[in-house]
Amino acid sequence: MSSEAISMASSSPSSFSPPNIPMELHALNRQKLVRSLRQHLQSLSRPLHGFVFLQGGEEQMRYCTDHAILFRQESYFAYLFGVSEPGFFGAIDIASGKSILFAPRLSADYAVWLGEIKPLSYFKERYMVSVVCYTDEIVRVLHDHYKGAGKPSLFLLHGLNTDSNNFCKPAELEEMEKFDSDLSILHPILTECRIFKTEMELSLIQYANDISSEAHVEVMRKTRAGMKEYQLESMFLHHVYMYGGCRHCSYTCICATGENSSVLHYGHAAAPNDRTLDNGDMALLDMGAEYHFYGSDITCSFPVNGKFTSDQCIIYDAVLKAHNAVISTMRPGISWIDMHKLAEEIMLESLKTGGLISGNVDDMMAERLGAIFMPHGLGHFLGIDTHDPGGYAKGMERPKEPGLRSLRTIRELQEGMVITVEPGCYFIDALLEPAMKNSTTSKFFNHKEICRFKNFGGVRIESDVHITCNGCKNLSNCPRERWEIEAVMAGAPWPLDKSFSRGNIGEG
Amino acid sequence: MSSEAISMASSSPSSFSPPNIPMELHALNRQKLVRSLRQHLQSLSRPLHGFVFLQGGEEQMRYCTDHAILFRQESYFAYLFGVSEPGFFGAIDIASGKSILFAPRLSADYAVWLGEIKPLSYFKERYMVSVVCYTDEIVRVLHDHYKGAGKPSLFLLHGLNTDSNNFCKPAELEEMEKFDSDLSILHPILTECRIFKTEMELSLIQYANDISSEAHVEVMRKTRAGMKEYQLESMFLHHVYMYGGCRHCSYTCICATGENSSVLHYGHAAAPNDRTLDNGDMALLDMGAEYHFYGSDITCSFPVNGKFTSDQCIIYDAVLKAHNAVISTMRPGISWIDMHKLAEEIMLESLKTGGLISGNVDDMMAERLGAIFMPHGLGHFLGIDTHDPGGYAKGMERPKEPGLRSLRTIRELQEGMVITVEPGCYFIDALLEPAMKNSTTSKFFNHKEICRFKNFGGVRIESDVHITCNGCKNLSNCPRERWEIEAVMAGAPWPLDKSFSRGNIGEG
Repeated sequence: MSSEAISMASSSPSSFSPPNIPMELHALNRQKLVRSLRQHLQSLSRPLHGFVFLQGGEEQMRYCTDHAILFRQESYFAYLFGVSEPGFFGAIDIASGKSILFAPRLSADYAVWLGEIKPLSYFKERYMVSVVCYTDEIVRVLHDHYKGAGKPSLFLLHGLNTDSNNFCKPAELEEMEKFDSDLSILHPILTECRIFKTEMELSLIQYANDISSEAHVEVMRKTRAGMKEYQLESMFLHHVYMYGGCRHCSYTCICATGENSSVLHYGHAAAPNDRTLDNGDMALLDMGAEYHFYGSDITCSFPVNGKFTSDQCIIYDAVLKAHNAVISTMRPGISWIDMHKLAEEIMLESLKTGGLISGNVDDMMAERLGAIFMPHGLGHFLGIDTHDPGGYAKGMERPKEPGLRSLRTIRELQEGMVITVEPGCYFIDALLEPAMKNSTTSKFFNHKEICRFKNFGGVRIESDVHITCNGCKNLSNCPRERWEIEAVMAGAPWPLDKSFSRGNIGEG
Repeated sequence: MSSEAISMASSSPSSFSPPNIPMELHALNRQKLVRSLRQHLQSLSRPLHGFVFLQGGEEQMRYCTDHAILFRQESYFAYLFGVSEPGFFGAIDIASGKSILFAPRLSADYAVWLGEIKPLSYFKERYMVSVVCYTDEIVRVLHDHYKGAGKPSLFLLHGLNTDSNNFCKPAELEEMEKFDSDLSILHPILTECRIFKTEMELSLIQYANDISSEAHVEVMRKTRAGMKEYQLESMFLHHVYMYGGCRHCSYTCICATGENSSVLHYGHAAAPNDRTLDNGDMALLDMGAEYHFYGSDITCSFPVNGKFTSDQCIIYDAVLKAHNAVISTMRPGISWIDMHKLAEEIMLESLKTGGLISGNVDDMMAERLGAIFMPHGLGHFLGIDTHDPGGYAKGMERPKEPGLRSLRTIRELQEGMVITVEPGCYFIDALLEPAMKNSTTSKFFNHKEICRFKNFGGVRIESDVHITCNGCKNLSNCPRERWEIEAVMAGAPWPLDKSFSRGNIGEG
């Protein structure tokens, strides 16, 4: 490294730098899958032969043009092979555990326009697989490797994504008739593997959390009334790419201020982070970077001008109390539905203390009042997808009640899961107005008080949490207490050093 | 605007701010189309009835997940309607000139998750169209508006994109049988409209050029050996979004340094701007922002350490001389093929003077030697697409010769066109090695000299140029002369003020 680079680095506004990519991670993922598949086949008394066979993503053009959309690998393929280039296929021999990558055979023109044509040995070394061949050799190579009787079996990926309600597309191949193909066995087993993170996966998710948490703090510090919401997005994207090497984010940044902060999925093309920040607004920033496919998903809520008003305190503290209570309860064996209800209950108690609602909280819970203030689920699995799959295993039924039906999983917590904890409290006209008129729920609302919050928007606090053997670990590291936020926005370092404490900052 | 915002603004590292979006621009585009269509129908003695009918883009999810890819409108639809949201259809009544937008009818849930459900009147006002209805009313509304006899005709968009070789997808509609549809008339006429920019279009392209030129200068100044190529990309993206309001770029940034700068379309997922910059490298940065659909496409080449070496001078000056000669020749009536050849000829002359090649330049031209050093075309139309369509009108045939066959257009220049001028000189093994062995071209190369450039990479200089009535205007504004680049990289302001001149900086 040159001397300039070193002097740059020392003045870098980041304490992180992009870690090396551990390709062993994917070898381990493959081993896990093969182990599970073999167990399953044995339990069915089926032979331990055949291949897991997946098709990687293809580069897409924008409509009919030659504008290439920046490629991002399909997530199941990324999980097993870690390949960042388009046009690959991959196979795993269930009998031997050997892994075979099939690379596209590139035309000579590629070298002129798109870069060096890498030899197969390059991919073999980079992706730590047993064999690399060309995609036009798939049929022959798989037949050569097959040691069983009859046609080789291909276990293809076909199953429902319970967040999108879309089915994933099994690998397509000319001459598929030369194989027996199975569409049912692979998906649930591979999905189950993805739920439980290895140490190597956890370290990437931790890194994505580290750089994203730091970027959140950076944005928080630089936020000023008069700015545009998209400027907060731009600062986040720049920090995680410039200093963190994260070219992709886990999802489009939600940079919602003022009343926009009650729009749960704000920031898309029809609501493009384009409002001007006002003094007195709350900001709700839901932004997370991705590093080598593994993501983060973090929300910070704070006052644009750096000082909480008393109304903002009520809502913020309600949400923070729920966030903290859930995290301190999470451990293996705990029901996620119970955690959702715990968050609701704590928020309702707080809103009652704050004078917004009144009555018996158990009655409110029975009427699902929590779902008026928090229509979304408490959290979701996180990994290579922001909404990592597997939230509903076969046979699990989605609850029907408001709020609960939005849960992306209802599973019991188990060691190795990574799940977001993201309670929120929002003032959404489309939900509040009918509920305040409804004869069974109207009585809970202190209409005059609620009125004050009409354009308040909402607050969400979201951390990514890893379930350990006897508890959990919060992977996100952002200022959460109000005094921490106010201190950091006033220029204090983060993490706060010892000279900062709740006592000598005072409460807003 | 708060006082903080004003003080922010005064210290802003940009002299630009996002202009208001002129929706009249699209009304004018529609008028232009209707005028052309009517003329064409009249020339065919066909009735001036029926509707131009287009389908806007739909939001896409990533593979089977619910990860929404940030929506960008289809370009023909954007041209006519300027609509930024997904799920719309649009019609223009050829008889009356009236424009009708069809908005998707959103479910009540949308208000909770995605934001306020805007009334039709909102879209009517925002997009300055005559009528807005829902997409489920298309058949009825078009029949109601139709004043001709028989079934209403729909002029649908179907035609070849000559850059991608893909066909655009005509609007799809249930009950299409209730209309006569025409797939051939619209595409060539609408494409022809897009080639000639109005003043309003030019001002957006100028703005995209202004903010992108400024961002290029910013990146140039901050480039240091030891950085990663993607850090240059991140700085560019941040500048154009933070200060320019440009959420999209015209294309994926090409941040190529060292030998990567000979990879013409570097920067994609398989070559992701991840090299570390070395002292002594050339950087070739091809980056352009888009504002309200209209784009820019600018390349700057400069030495990473801020000082050109003598070898870098030879190649850079060859390309700059070609760039400048072409721009000073461009005016209506000039053949683009001639411009391509002019650029080749000037570069070959310079390489000859530099001692890399020898022999008669006319002979080199006859052997298409220029295409070894510049395999791509000299430039392309620019607008809502980076490679704006219409480069080959019906009947125009793509040349067969190396280099010339890569031209994205062979048209004669006409007033109102915006076209990139991007000569480049690259040392591409895949082209040089065969040419240096080939019995007819080998003689031109001074093998020993060329050898010195083996890992040089390449230089490209690209500006966006508007053809005026009697000449042309360069819309890009980056340091181009070597002494300008060295001055700016040493900290001089851009544009240079009077105290800087070639004389008192001295030549590198």
